[in-house]
Parts: sequence; C-alpha cells; structure tokens
Amino acid sequence: MMIVIMQPTASMQEKSGIVAWAEDHGYKVHLSSGSERTLIGIIGDDRYINREQLERMAGVERVMPVLKPFKIASREFKPENTRFAVGDHVVGSDEIIIMAGPCSVESRSQIIETAQACKEAGAHILRGGAFKPRSSPYSFQGLGEEGLQYLAEAREITGMPIITEVMEPALVPLVCQYADILQIGARNMQNYALLHAVGESQHPVLLKRGMSSLIEEWLMCAEYILSHGNTRVMLCERGIRTFERYTRNTFDINAIPVLKELSHLPVIADPSHGTGKWEYVESITKASIAAGADGVIIEVHPRPEEASSDGRQSLKPERFANLVRDMKAIATAVGRDVR
Amino acid sequence: MMIVIMQPTASMQEKSGIVAWAEDHGYKVHLSSGSERTLIGIIGDDRYINREQLERMAGVERVMPVLKPFKIASREFKPENTRFAVGDHVVGSDEIIIMAGPCSVESRSQIIETAQACKEAGAHILRGGAFKPRSSPYSFQGLGEEGLQYLAEAREITGMPIITEVMEPALVPLVCQYADILQIGARNMQNYALLHAVGESQHPVLLKRGMSSLIEEWLMCAEYILSHGNTRVMLCERGIRTFERYTRNTFDINAIPVLKELSHLPVIADPSHGTGKWEYVESITKASIAAGADGVIIEVHPRPEEASSDGRQSLKPERFANLVRDMKAIATAVGRDVR
Amino acid sequence: MMIVIMQPTASMQEKSGIVAWAEDHGYKVHLSSGSERTLIGIIGDDRYINREQLERMAGVERVMPVLKPFKIASREFKPENTRFAVGDHVVGSDEIIIMAGPCSVESRSQIIETAQACKEAGAHILRGGAFKPRSSPYSFQGLGEEGLQYLAEAREITGMPIITEVMEPALVPLVCQYADILQIGARNMQNYALLHAVGESQHPVLLKRGMSSLIEEWLMCAEYILSHGNTRVMLCERGIRTFERYTRNTFDINAIPVLKELSHLPVIADPSHGTGKWEYVESITKASIAAGADGVIIEVHPRPEEASSDGRQSLKPERFANLVRDMKAIATAVGRDVR
Amino acid sequence: MMIVIMQPTASMQEKSGIVAWAEDHGYKVHLSSGSERTLIGIIGDDRYINREQLERMAGVERVMPVLKPFKIASREFKPENTRFAVGDHVVGSDEIIIMAGPCSVESRSQIIETAQACKEAGAHILRGGAFKPRSSPYSFQGLGEEGLQYLAEAREITGMPIITEVMEPALVPLVCQYADILQIGARNMQNYALLHAVGESQHPVLLKRGMSSLIEEWLMCAEYILSHGNTRVMLCERGIRTFERYTRNTFDINAIPVLKELSHLPVIADPSHGTGKWEYVESITKASIAAGADGVIIEVHPRPEEASSDGRQSLKPERFANLVRDMKAIATAVGRDVR
Repeated sequence: MMIVIMQPTASMQEKSGIVAWAEDHGYKVHLSSGSERTLIGIIGDDRYINREQLERMAGVERVMPVLKPFKIASREFKPENTRFAVGDHVVGSDEIIIMAGPCSVESRSQIIETAQACKEAGAHILRGGAFKPRSSPYSFQGLGEEGLQYLAEAREITGMPIITEVMEPALVPLVCQYADILQIGARNMQNYALLHAVGESQHPVLLKRGMSSLIEEWLMCAEYILSHGNTRVMLCERGIRTFERYTRNTFDINAIPVLKELSHLPVIADPSHGTGKWEYVESITKASIAAGADGVIIEVHPRPEEASSDGRQSLKPERFANLVRDMKAIATAVGRDVR
Repeated sequence: MMIVIMQPTASMQEKSGIVAWAEDHGYKVHLSSGSERTLIGIIGDDRYINREQLERMAGVERVMPVLKPFKIASREFKPENTRFAVGDHVVGSDEIIIMAGPCSVESRSQIIETAQACKEAGAHILRGGAFKPRSSPYSFQGLGEEGLQYLAEAREITGMPIITEVMEPALVPLVCQYADILQIGARNMQNYALLHAVGESQHPVLLKRGMSSLIEEWLMCAEYILSHGNTRVMLCERGIRTFERYTRNTFDINAIPVLKELSHLPVIADPSHGTGKWEYVESITKASIAAGADGVIIEVHPRPEEASSDGRQSLKPERFANLVRDMKAIATAVGRDVR
Repeated sequence: MMIVIMQPTASMQEKSGIVAWAEDHGYKVHLSSGSERTLIGIIGDDRYINREQLERMAGVERVMPVLKPFKIASREFKPENTRFAVGDHVVGSDEIIIMAGPCSVESRSQIIETAQACKEAGAHILRGGAFKPRSSPYSFQGLGEEGLQYLAEAREITGMPIITEVMEPALVPLVCQYADILQIGARNMQNYALLHAVGESQHPVLLKRGMSSLIEEWLMCAEYILSHGNTRVMLCERGIRTFERYTRNTFDINAIPVLKELSHLPVIADPSHGTGKWEYVESITKASIAAGADGVIIEVHPRPEEASSDGRQSLKPERFANLVRDMKAIATAVGRDVR
Repeated sequence: MMIVIMQPTASMQEKSGIVAWAEDHGYKVHLSSGSERTLIGIIGDDRYINREQLERMAGVERVMPVLKPFKIASREFKPENTRFAVGDHVVGSDEIIIMAGPCSVESRSQIIETAQACKEAGAHILRGGAFKPRSSPYSFQGLGEEGLQYLAEAREITGMPIITEVMEPALVPLVCQYADILQIGARNMQNYALLHAVGESQHPVLLKRGMSSLIEEWLMCAEYILSHGNTRVMLCERGIRTFERYTRNTFDINAIPVLKELSHLPVIADPSHGTGKWEYVESITKASIAAGADGVIIEVHPRPEEASSDGRQSLKPERFANLVRDMKAIATAVGRDVR
C-alpha cells in the first residue's frame, strides 16, 4: 500500500488522474479528503507499485510507502528464526558461532598454523581470503585458487568448514568447489550479478553490509539471493562509514536488534572490520553477543606484524583464546551457549 | 610536536623560513632531508603551536600533529581511572551506575511515581528534564524551576541523587541549588560559555557527545571543563547521526573502548537516545556494559504513551526492572557489579 | 495533519482509542480502512499534535506528519522573498551581497587594513570575530569587546556595516551596541537561549547551519528567531560534516535550491568554511551564485600565514579582488547583479 | 615515503627493528630523535610499503603516508589535462560536454523520441540504461541487449555517440559492440573485476563515484582502470550519502575543484542523481559548470510520470532546452564554451 499526498492546490481532475491510474493498474483505491488536502491510498503489493511514476503525476506532493520493500527476508513472511547446519554447528540456533582466521591466505604453512591455533582456541569455522578486494591495484590481491587449495588442506587437518570471499560471478563455481560458505564482501553488497550467481548456488552465503548501506538496502540484497532460491543467508554487520577517525569504521551495534526484529535471518558480527584496531575487537565482540548476534567472525594471525593485509586489526591466537573464554561468559549471561 | 612536510619544490629559503619561525617562537627544530622532500619537526607543546599559521607559510605542503590536543583529559596525564562518589555509589569504580527516569518532569505526581518505580527496580540516580531543548519553538519546553522542585522532592522521598540538564550559563547557579549532577546536552556540547560555567561549579558533570562530534572534539570539550578546575566529568555516548533511518541515532559502541584507552574519565551509555526506540534499549544497554561502560542512563516512564517528550524511547518500569536483572548478569560476566 | 498507520493486528478497541484521543484533543479525524490495515488521519496543526504520544499508543505502527513543522519560515506562509536593507544594499533582492573580512579581529591595524582592502575589492559588509568559539581551551579566544571597538572603527573609516558572532545570551546587548548583523555560529545553531535572545533584538541575524543539521532542523531554528518577532533572518550554508577528508567540510550546494523552495529567507554561502582550503574558495563561490545564493561571506586576510585562526582558508586581498570580478560575470549570467 | 612515529616508551631495540625491516625491504631510512619521541622516515614508493605491517611492529605508535597512493591518475604524473575526442567533441578541453537521455531505455520509440529531443536541445552524447542496477529484485531490470540495439538505432538517427552502463565483466564485450562510452555505476565503483575488464577494453569509461567513497578511493579505482592500459577515463560526481533527507544525495560540489587539483582526468557532474529531484537539477547543473566541471550528464524523459525508473529526477525536454541555454551563459562567464 502506498499513500499519495496531493498538493493543497490539486484540482479535481488531478485527483481523478491518480485514481484512474491506480485502477488501470489493477489496484484498489481509498480516498480521504480533508479540509486542507486529499490523501489517496493505493492498495496492492508495494513491490510492484511504481512509486516514481506516481511522484511525477500532476498534483502529487509526496508518495509514502506503508509496507517494507523486502518480503522473503522479512519476519512477517517467516516468523521463526532461520537455522541451518554448517559442519557440526547450527547457525541461528541458541549457540554462538565463531568464525576465525587470517584476513588473507598467505602461504600453506601460515593458514595451517592459524587454523590449528583457532581450532584449539575454540573456533568453529575457518575464514581466509584467497581473492582479495584491495583499494590499490598495487597491493597483494590474494593467492587465488592456490589459496583455496591451502584452505581445503587446513579443513582436512582441523575438520573446520571454511568461509572465503567470492568477488565475481564467473568465479562462483570455482569457489564453490572448495568453500563451505561463500562470503560477499562489503564492496560487492550491491553487485547484483554476483548476488544472482550465489543465489543460484547451493552454498550458504554470508552477506556483508555495504559500507554506507541502509539496513533496508541490505535486506533487499538478501532478498535478491533468497529470491533466486537460496535460503541459507547470514547477514554480517562490519561497521559503517562515518566521520569518526579513531576507528576505521563505526560498528553499528543497533543493527543487531533491528535485524532481529525485521528479519528471520542469522546475524553475524565482524568486530575486526567494525573497529579496524585489534585493541577494540574484544570489547565489540562481547558487546555483539550481549546485543543478540548469532555469531562472530574475527581476524586472527599468528604474527600480525607480518600480515599482508589487515594486520592492524588481527588478534594473536593467545588473545583470541582468552576472548573465546570471555564469549562463553557473555553467552551464558544472555541465555546462549558457545559449544 | 608538529611535523611540517615541505613541498618537493620548496626552496632553501622557504625551509629556513619555517626554522626561523619555530625558533622565534621558542621551539626546537629537527630537520630531516630526504631525496624527495624535507620534513621539519617542531618540538614543543602542540596545544600552543599555531598549526594554521604554519600551513599557510611558503613551501609547506602539510602539517601533521604528533600528539593529541587534549591533555588533562588524557590517560597519559592521569593513568588511573577517575572515580568519585555520587550518593552511596562510586562512579568509575567496579560497579555499574544506573541512572533512570523520565525524559521530562511533567508533574509532581509523575516524577515521584517514576522515581519510586526506578528506585524499586534498582536505579541509583534519578534523571528528569526541567529545562528541555526542543527542536520546535512550539513544543513543551519543560516546567523550569518548578520541575527542579519536584525533582528535589523525589530525591527526599527516594534518597536518589538527581541529574538534570542545564542549558545556559545564567541558569547554572539555579540548577546547582537543586541538582547533584549537571547534564550538558548533545546540542550544547560545544557551548563554550556553558562549559566554562559548569567548569567553575563544584558539581559533577555528565557531558553528552554532540550528534556528529569526533571523539577528539568531545574530549576537548571535557578539557574545557577540566581546565576550569572541575575534575568530576563523565562522558556520555548517546549515538551519532548517520544515514541510517530505522534508528533515531547510531549508538557508537566503539567509542566505549576508544575512550577507555584515550582517557581516564568515566563513560556512561545512553541507549534511549542511542536508538530512539524502546524495543532496542535492552540490547544496547547490555552491549554497552559488555563493552566496558561504567554506567547507563535510561529513560523510564510509567505511561510512555502520555509522555510529553521521547515516549517512543522510554521503557515502562516493569521492563526496566527486568533489564536491571539482565544488567547484573552481564556485569558479572565482565567482572563488574551492580549494587 | 498526521497519518497514523495502525498495525495489521490492531483491534477495533485500539482504533477507537486513537480516534477518542484525537477528538479529546480537539482534532478532526479521517478513517480509511483497507483490507490489510487502517489509516487514521488526524487533522489539525501539526506543530501541536504530540507525535510521540501517538507513536506509543496501543496498535500504532507508525505516525507520519504530512505538513512541514516550520511555519513562519515557510514559503507557504510568505510566498515572496524576504528583503531588507543593510547599509546601502538590499539582502534578498536581485543583488548579490558580499561579506568579507578576517576570521578573527587580531589588532586595530589588521582589521582596518583588511577592511580597506575588502572595500576596495568590492565587498559590502565587513566580517570579523571578536568572540571566537575554539575547539581547544588553549587557543586564542578573540579580543572580546576590544575587538568590537576595532570593528566599529573600521566601519567608521570604510562605511561598511559589520557582522560579528555572538556566542551567549548575556552578550547580546553588548554585541548589538557595535554590530549591524549578529552571526550565530554553527556550533550554536541549536542554542535555544541564544536564539531567543537574538530573536528579541532588533538586529538582522545570520544563522549558520549546524555541522550535521538537517535542513528541516535549521529552518526550525530560524523559526525560533522569527517566532520571537525578529523577521530579518539570513540562512548561511557553511558545509556539513561527512566522511570526506580532502576538505574540511562538504559544502551542501543542494541546500541552496532546497531552501529557496521551502522558505522565503535569504540564503548566504560560506565557501571558506564550506571547503576549509583557500584553493577551493573561488570555485565554490562561483558555484553558489550560479545555484541561486543571495550572497556570500568570505574570509580574507592580508597575511594568511600570520592569521591567528583559519589562515588555511583565507584569501589574500588580491585574489579576493579577482574573485569579485568573477562573481560579477556569474551574477550576470544568472540574471543578477553585484553592485 | 612513510613516517613511522615511535611510542615515547619505545626501546632502542624496537627502533632498530624498524630500521632493519626497512633496509631489508630495500628502503632508505631517515632517523629523527626528539626529546620525547623518535620519528623514522622510510623512503621509497608508498604504493609498495606495507603500512599495515609497520603499524603492528613493536614500539610503533602511528604510521603516516606522505605521498598520495594514486600515481597514474595524479596531476604530478601528468600535469596537463587529459583530453580525448568522443564524436565531434573533445572531453577535457575548453568545451562543456552535455550528455542527456532517459534513465532506462524503455522502448524503441521512447529512446528515439528522447534522443531527437535531446539532440535538438543541444546535447552531444546520448545516455540510456539497458542493464539497470535496481535495489529491488522485483523492479524493472532493463531491456538488456534489446535496449542496446535501440540505443544504436538512436545513434544512427541523431548522430550522437552513446553512453550506457555495464554491470559485469562478462558483459563488457557485448556492451562494447554497441556503446561509445562505458559507464561504471556508483554501486560498482569498487567492483575490481569490472574495473579490470573495462581497463582492458579500448573504450572511454565514465567512472561514477561510489555513494560513500572518499575522493582518494575513487581515484584509486580510476588508477585500476588506468593501470590496465586504458587512459580515457572520466570521473563522474553523482552525490554522496549523508544524513540530509530533502534530497536523495548530497552533491559534493567541492569534489570538482579537489579533483582538478589532484588529477588530470576530466570531471563530469550528474545533477540528476546528485539531487534526486528535477526541481534542483537546473541549479546544480549551473553550479557544476561554475565550479569547473568539464561536462554534465542529465536525465531527460519526454513523459517523466511514465518513466520506469528515476522519473522523479528527470527533466522534460523543454526544461532541458532552457537549461542548455543557461549553461551557455555560465560557460561563457567562466571562459568556456558549449558548442
């Protein structure tokens, strides 16, 4: 349903024009004439009402949608939480899911060493980038398929499922061969061809929020994936861009309860990108679980000072192990569990 | 210390000009000449080096400060946490301080009823606005001194100290007669005459972050108060303005660990303004304590649908009582306490 | 008029509750019941309808205002442009008003020298700060009344009216003794006590936009001044805070046509603060006039490298003189005039 | 060159660690030891110095780059403006380039009718989307190749070269068959696979700024294209996302002079997206030319109320024709020309 607010000066003819348009398009109409102005309610599925056309019609002051534009992603559509298993753990259930690993896969030994340390500290899923989106064409762009092979080897050794980023539609089949979860990075949140491609895959998807995306736009991108038939979508809050400069991004903690209200999809927090500095990762991890997140994804590197990317925000394994202990205490305090 | 980066084309004479300026102003100088450009380090107290003058001098490309501009507010200046008693509780200690009450004092019975309910639920300090900053000149502007009298009466009855906002320098003496803590609102964070006035009072001050203020600017405003001799300053994160529209503000959870690193001052979270909707207040309160806040300030109203301001973000007393129970669990999980 | 959108699950009783509330408060009601949900239009002056109360009532999903919250400032209220004379020039007319001068009054000779240079270059009004809002308590805070005296002397010599900032209500009478126009700085846009005080003075006011203020909030602050009886208000766009770092602020050029549509008040551009670097002042000055601004306020300093504040964004008099020539060409191209 | 600022407490060993690292990586080192702290200048090409590694090394407080991260896009690299011909016009020269047309190609007759009207009004290049990035999966996604064919037909008839968006790497060859200029949309600014693909094409590229991208990031994306051998890149400012709600985006007019200083690439303004409302397009078009833009891209639709997208911001042909006349006046006023 859309509400069309007519200008105070709108003529009878202009009002009739709106009504005729709506009826021609198969919608029902509600007319409400006040002393100052007339409101016209157009009743039908908002997703298909062309708001832009209405806004340009004669006599119209403003058009306001009443319903939210996303549907399959909404809690109205599916009241109970979405849950699905990844390895031995169930995302969206009472347990808190812990994903950890380096920003980039740098070498066979680096990823295996990190995977073992993460596993030992209590992580459930191994993260690591083989294809890296970098703001400079002169920076390290990732090991590519070689990196995927090392990740698979680390999975063999540790038993942890792996999550890794896919950056272009043409690479979805390749990444699917190796990964258990596909990650869509913040810069690609609105890369619709890519959303389409992962929507048609059978892999769970972790969809990061774009750097300055509205929660509504983010849910619309989840809707793209869902509408192509893939129901296993996680939403990952990783901080938004604001004016603040002490941190790389501003972690939007509010997004956690907002998403829980609007949607049934699991919510994962990324305190590493959400702050950009390892010193703050522990506080924001604990805060995220207290706020209701279903899991976290954390950058861990055995020697952050040698990391080829994001060393500034990576925890060392021993700090990460302490953090997992803290997570357990917080999880218990909010009636959840780290297994 | 400031670093002056000279342009690659800067002449010998231009470099000497900077050195001469610095020495004339009593600073020491460090010269570092590379193959491409020369850097000049000017050593002295950054607070008094005129960066703007330097930036306009011939041959200068950029001037970068090395030290932070705040001093008394910094943790370098005072490594241990600032602590002070308000009533029976110690702000900045291991205990979590809970301030609660209505946005506005609306009547004698409303504030007394709310105060009793808050006290019973476990609050330590009573909040309530007598002078209200309202974005419209046509909105309710508060009861003024009458409101202060009702607050004092509520204190008599419940034993809770009171916090209330002061909006202009001329009213500081009046508000000090009634209040235990002075609140500086977000819109007045940079009202320097007001900061001066509360800096000269003997009352603790809660300084809210301006809606789009950098953490550094906020600490500079605390520095204004501190530099006038008042050491009992609390910093209150209440959300910043971003593009997001599902929430009234974006609560900057990162600010909590950042402030704890940069400063010794206590940090209070305001989840009511930080979200703008009561549904999200519980999540963000818990998150704030998990992230390391020293206390919270929460809007509570017995009948939010009748509140003359901010009813949308006020909790009912029974929900608030539940939340205090949850706060205790989180406080314990992070090694702190609600008394 | 407000539109109350009821939840799909709202009961008959809840709907009746809204209607009863509205009628009790003297409003008329329009009911529009669709298949999915009911809309209730509450007809009356939006400025007095308590939206927050409505939002908390049982069964309500959302409340949407139909009208704008400002009234006296709106073009509906007063369709023709506000015009008033300052010295020999008419603000809000076809002519472009040029205000120029240093950020701060630093000395008698500095302000007189600058005033003469600005006058010669074609400026109409002299700007200069005697009371300076500074983010650091350790920075130069202005010469105070001595600065006002020098400004008055510069007016004697050049014949140019003067504009200067007033920072607190208690100083309004003093500043009025010397100044022709009172400036409200960006940090004080929502200092309501100050708006009240200048609203009761008989002086024209230049109201700067707050650093992160919505256009609507800014117009509400103008409404504060107007509602206290002072009709001579100018709106000054000086840039907003965004994430961009190459410039000090982001000059919101869109605000110029938006304000011209919403309001009858004159619009002045401040390209000096709007960019923060003198190199960009010329482009943005020309752009502002092309976009429809009624005037500009520009920082000029004979020796910017010695300025005690804002030297980075001040033009030298000879560049300013060239810019006035460019302004004339642009003014002609848009059917206006620099006299 | 990077400057490493050591912590005040850094040990001799920690300082030696940095020096050793730098020398091992083939950089020269400058040491500057003050009374409070030591600065280490690392001299080499910033593009290859791993800042993140440095920031994690023991004893380091902060690392500051001295040079800009983009090179081929910079004015230092190429001081004179980049110019290239598109049809009979030269982008980057003294003439103002006018691109116009509908948001989407909707039908053969619509694009031909619009093209003829634009041509007659004075446009040089025809815009029109065949592949449309839409925030909802349920919205019209464009006519695809059929749309490209209609565009080509419109070019046949009017002689105007065509610009159209390409959204994924796999479609670059197809779009190149039809288009004269490839457009990269705001959502794809950091779609590196796409930048790579258009960088290898021989077509001029118009690179839109991402919705919340820093100017520096934008130039780094241009650098991606340039570094793959394509030198014909235009930068298109289309507004950034801020908190303001009266306009769809905030057109960053400052970006025009900033880009002209930092880079040699042509700058095109998009006032349609930059404002989101046709009422403001005329002001912002004129402002852009006054600020120094090399051209504009404007949405024109013969019947905006029927447009399948962006009707709210489209001009009718007669308003566009008037605007071209106004552009000529402004161009003359700034010493340029509309041919």
